[in-house]
Amino acid sequence: MNEQKQTVKPYVIGLDLGGTNSVFGIVDARGDIKATTAIKTGGFEHAEAYVEACMTALHPIIEEVGGIGTIKAMGIGAPNGNYYHGTIEYAPNLPWAHDVVVPLAGMFSERLGVPVALTNDANAAAIGEMTYGVARGMKNFIVLTLGTGVGSGIVIDGKLVYGSNGFAGELGHVVVRSENGRSCGCGRKGCLETYCSATGVARTAREMLIKDVRPSMLRGLTPEEITSLDVSVAAEKGDEIAQEIYRFTGHMLGEACANFAAFSAPEAFIFFGGMTKAGELIMKPIRESYQEHVQSLFKDAQFLISGLDGSSAAVLGASAIGWEL
Amino acid sequence: MNEQKQTVKPYVIGLDLGGTNSVFGIVDARGDIKATTAIKTGGFEHAEAYVEACMTALHPIIEEVGGIGTIKAMGIGAPNGNYYHGTIEYAPNLPWAHDVVVPLAGMFSERLGVPVALTNDANAAAIGEMTYGVARGMKNFIVLTLGTGVGSGIVIDGKLVYGSNGFAGELGHVVVRSENGRSCGCGRKGCLETYCSATGVARTAREMLIKDVRPSMLRGLTPEEITSLDVSVAAEKGDEIAQEIYRFTGHMLGEACANFAAFSAPEAFIFFGGMTKAGELIMKPIRESYQEHVQSLFKDAQFLISGLDGSSAAVLGASAIGWEL
Repeated sequence: MNEQKQTVKPYVIGLDLGGTNSVFGIVDARGDIKATTAIKTGGFEHAEAYVEACMTALHPIIEEVGGIGTIKAMGIGAPNGNYYHGTIEYAPNLPWAHDVVVPLAGMFSERLGVPVALTNDANAAAIGEMTYGVARGMKNFIVLTLGTGVGSGIVIDGKLVYGSNGFAGELGHVVVRSENGRSCGCGRKGCLETYCSATGVARTAREMLIKDVRPSMLRGLTPEEITSLDVSVAAEKGDEIAQEIYRFTGHMLGEACANFAAFSAPEAFIFFGGMTKAGELIMKPIRESYQEHVQSLFKDAQFLISGLDGSSAAVLGASAIGWEL
Repeated sequence: MNEQKQTVKPYVIGLDLGGTNSVFGIVDARGDIKATTAIKTGGFEHAEAYVEACMTALHPIIEEVGGIGTIKAMGIGAPNGNYYHGTIEYAPNLPWAHDVVVPLAGMFSERLGVPVALTNDANAAAIGEMTYGVARGMKNFIVLTLGTGVGSGIVIDGKLVYGSNGFAGELGHVVVRSENGRSCGCGRKGCLETYCSATGVARTAREMLIKDVRPSMLRGLTPEEITSLDVSVAAEKGDEIAQEIYRFTGHMLGEACANFAAFSAPEAFIFFGGMTKAGELIMKPIRESYQEHVQSLFKDAQFLISGLDGSSAAVLGASAIGWEL
């Protein structure tokens, strides 16, 4: 039956709905992207107009792979996405969704005539890793997405954790410094995200360049304009302060993971997002700090970098939700 | 079919295997204990001898309820219990299991001829709450057991979380003070358990009686001998320092729960164990601190005290695992 299904409907649509771009991919069961397209996310007053523009963009690529009859389902990864309701809820960065609840999954499903599921981008990444990436065959793991913020997708016993309200897995907002913590965009202090996101790394750079007197190529930049990429480039060139910044960041992540392990005893932590390009510069201090802080019961967890190709990872993640339907 | 099953095998056996006593109960589906017995846990050189003594004690109460044909299964709540393997692993307080892996579930199953499952006491408490207690009908909740240590049982989507190795849910060993934390028996520092267990409360009392100059009835006691019960009695009598100790303890718990919420978005936190007898003295600061620290997404969680009768709660919890088989 499975084989027949795959013959008849071999594809799912993935939509990576970001603040700037909405990227579509039509994906097969192996994670090969057969066709892709994109539109700007903004510029629409209402969700209706956004969905219309999406349909116009989707039509040609659906025809390209053989028509809607080849499509099993659609998955959407979106900020403030609620899986239970298929809604985007009060997403601050989406002009057509910042003060409303948009039933986006239903709107697409109605137009396409296929089932549509929606969740946040970090959850999509976790399902993507399980479907196409390094978590294939794993039942218990945690994905941490290191981007502008820190997101997470938690898989327990082969299922993504959505919790009582659909918003479980906000590990970027676990407080890791209960005293003198950095102020977070969520209104609280000391959240993991304030240290270990790309913006957190830039903040660490600014602090460290004041505290540490060693020479650094980062001193040539305007402090407010330093990015995590600048730090990564400098670190790779052997800049000691830049390397120290990654050690600090990795140390905080390892310490946080040691606490997360006590919750769900995952077999792996998987890191996703631009900052993982720093490779061992960040992974080594993560592993060392984890071993330093974790209870011996949980010391065997693996630390992996996402197995999904960078540029299409988010689309693959979104599409993977489609296979679950 | 369900009805027939219940007619034929209406009971499960629960074993609350503690460091001192092993308490058995034969329990029906409503949580009524039909027969009970107990033996001392220690005094046996090998697990074989312990199980033999258990069988001798069990025999008469099994006959009392109508023989082994009325027993569906057996559940065991035990320290260092591994659900996946049905084993007790290196339990420091059990003379016949402190340096070995004892396949206790299999040993009982062989002798009784019924399925036997085993997990740690906090997990048993969580299943007990779901089966007979305040969590009936809930799919996502966390039980925190406040005793000599702090244990936890996490239920997500109606299932207990065991994780990759069977040891998930060690929330008593989440580090809540990353700097200047109290030393923990696990060898690390700042674990929740060092603040919020009964021994943590006694420690807080000793610290506070030095720092705070107000009069207190606790000053009449030898500092090393103060227990959480002494603090509770004094607090109920209006002792200001004792009340401050409970405020501090509740504050730490509420702050920790705010972090736990980010993981699994539970609909309730349920507190279990002797310290909950302090009632509002501890529950009020927990709720207040939770609201102060939690992300707004998770502010609706309820805070409840275990619905299981104190003296038999652990036996009921253990028995509840039997119904899952």
